[in-house]
Amino acid sequence: MSDDERLARLALSRLSEPGDLRIARLVTDLGAVAVLAHLIADGEAFPERRAVAERLLDARPEQDLALADRLGLRFVIPGDAEWPFPVDDLGHLEALQERGGVPLGLWVRGSLRLDRLNDHEGPGGVAIVGSRSSTSYGDNVARGIAAAAADAGVVVVSGAAYGVDAAAHRGAFAGGGPTIAVLACGPDRSYPAGHAELLDQVARDGAVVTETPPGWPPTRMRFLSRNRIIAALARGTVVVEASGRSGAQNTANWASRLSRTLMAVPGPVSSATSEGCHQLIRRGAAALVTDGAEVLESIGRSGQHLLAEPRARSRPRDSLAIRDQQVLDAVPRTRPARVDSIARVAGVALTTAQSALDRMQKKGLVAEIDGGWQLAQQALY
Amino acid sequence: MSDDERLARLALSRLSEPGDLRIARLVTDLGAVAVLAHLIADGEAFPERRAVAERLLDARPEQDLALADRLGLRFVIPGDAEWPFPVDDLGHLEALQERGGVPLGLWVRGSLRLDRLNDHEGPGGVAIVGSRSSTSYGDNVARGIAAAAADAGVVVVSGAAYGVDAAAHRGAFAGGGPTIAVLACGPDRSYPAGHAELLDQVARDGAVVTETPPGWPPTRMRFLSRNRIIAALARGTVVVEASGRSGAQNTANWASRLSRTLMAVPGPVSSATSEGCHQLIRRGAAALVTDGAEVLESIGRSGQHLLAEPRARSRPRDSLAIRDQQVLDAVPRTRPARVDSIARVAGVALTTAQSALDRMQKKGLVAEIDGGWQLAQQALY
Repeated sequence: MSDDERLARLALSRLSEPGDLRIARLVTDLGAVAVLAHLIADGEAFPERRAVAERLLDARPEQDLALADRLGLRFVIPGDAEWPFPVDDLGHLEALQERGGVPLGLWVRGSLRLDRLNDHEGPGGVAIVGSRSSTSYGDNVARGIAAAAADAGVVVVSGAAYGVDAAAHRGAFAGGGPTIAVLACGPDRSYPAGHAELLDQVARDGAVVTETPPGWPPTRMRFLSRNRIIAALARGTVVVEASGRSGAQNTANWASRLSRTLMAVPGPVSSATSEGCHQLIRRGAAALVTDGAEVLESIGRSGQHLLAEPRARSRPRDSLAIRDQQVLDAVPRTRPARVDSIARVAGVALTTAQSALDRMQKKGLVAEIDGGWQLAQQALY
Repeated sequence: MSDDERLARLALSRLSEPGDLRIARLVTDLGAVAVLAHLIADGEAFPERRAVAERLLDARPEQDLALADRLGLRFVIPGDAEWPFPVDDLGHLEALQERGGVPLGLWVRGSLRLDRLNDHEGPGGVAIVGSRSSTSYGDNVARGIAAAAADAGVVVVSGAAYGVDAAAHRGAFAGGGPTIAVLACGPDRSYPAGHAELLDQVARDGAVVTETPPGWPPTRMRFLSRNRIIAALARGTVVVEASGRSGAQNTANWASRLSRTLMAVPGPVSSATSEGCHQLIRRGAAALVTDGAEVLESIGRSGQHLLAEPRARSRPRDSLAIRDQQVLDAVPRTRPARVDSIARVAGVALTTAQSALDRMQKKGLVAEIDGGWQLAQQALY
């Protein structure tokens, strides 16, 4: 990409709100340079032309790039090797474009290259989101899933909020893998302020990402736009505790719209913070997951992370014919019983009981004691 | 039905194990009288002819009926007005016949007529089953769902075991409705012995039901056969806490095979007793339910128990245009800000901000104070 394109995208990012679909579509069709030129020449074409005019005064892309250099930030745009969204993967790009607009660019702070998420062979990323007022149950589950994901090389993506988001980032640290925090404010800001240190820690091995220009504060609308970036960066989104109406639900909706795998963790039905998760599962929007292994299986591709079907321990009695099981059920645990008593309780003929007992004795399931029969140690569970 | 048919079914019930598909099919095809005659004349045709011969010595159906009279029991067979399985509903009957056999008859103790479950207009029954080693969480949820069902006139069906079963029966008492306990032993026995009083209480307004003849003890095989009766008597089965491998899972499988609605209650992912429920939901076998209202909705027919879609409280801001919401987000909660500052934060033109503020002031969302603007009390949530 030319420097002109990068500077034009920077300028445009200050002329519109993140996720402005109209601008995103124009840029896709015409390129950022042309759109910027049109805007400057003919602001009249846009309903908020005065807003554009006012904002143009603020847009000094060269200064932004100089500031970025000083702060150790980079502004990544489509065409850069690091761009995380697959440009050849039309399904996803189209969905993002259709619904919330491909970002004009992403501000990045940190050592992780975002294109790691775009490597079809690699393990990709998983978003873990949830309530800011989570319970310790939710925090524990989020931390556990994040640690398992990080341990498997999967990048944990979240929003750096209090509660589940913070637990997810910290779980990734514990799992020894990089994590990505996507912000709703400029890359030079820390939000929430109490998480400034957490964000520094995220940036060390991972990345702090935002489409919002430097200096801009978060707004409710920017949080909602930010959520589409969280969902889009990951192969799947896990919702860990969410009330009926919440930002996590918004991220979940983005994941569905973008054809990403959506998962939710159940909890006690008496817990209000699990309500949103239960609703997502009930209406078939999200798959129920209970741990990191199930999450990895759900987002795995081509045989990665395939879980063995959960199975209960098999027992020696399982290999018996039905008739023999019936006799086995009639054999007492203690106090040996005679074969005729066992046959009567089992409801089988004497000879049937006798041959079943002989077979099961060879298998070590029953033992003959003092002319009677009782269960062998092995059958006592 | 003739007395001969009833006596023949009684005799046959002592010649075979409950759920013996071979006998059930022969009886459906030939009638119980003919099958019994064949068995007596030609025991050789059956592999366990000696068992039949021995058991025939025990089968004294007239004595069984006399005993039943003394104990206040009745033996209900197909064709009786009280027979609970729809004979014209081929889908269900066939499934029961295919899979585990229609019972030869049902022993009933209690005042509830079983055909109440077979009334297409009525609310029918719901089975609530689960772990014997339930947690207090599981007991509470089972009790709550059962009470809601009973309160709505739905008969609660369970197995009288410790844990979830007992909580379900007790919940039905609390809800003021009759409940049915299905046993794996003869109707003259109480199993578990510690629940003799509970079973008496069930029989008072409800019914204790079994296909196992008087005097017979429960066996593992009879429990498994019993579970198909629990599932078959109800329109739907709710699993409340079940480990990976359990009797509740077996009842759940019966509900699926018999085309009944299968539901499961989620719980903490850290709880082993919720594992079975989560597996059922994960593999799409069971719908997730969190309370009695959702259970009633799931088993409801033709508009009964239709739940309103769960919705979060609506807020005044929801009725605003996106642009106005954007301005609202930029208005401080305290310390009034001037319109130019609000416009800048919101990223809109001054005039846009001014007209939005005017509109929102009329709606009582913002207030003008000392030449600046802040959120009105109403918008502060």
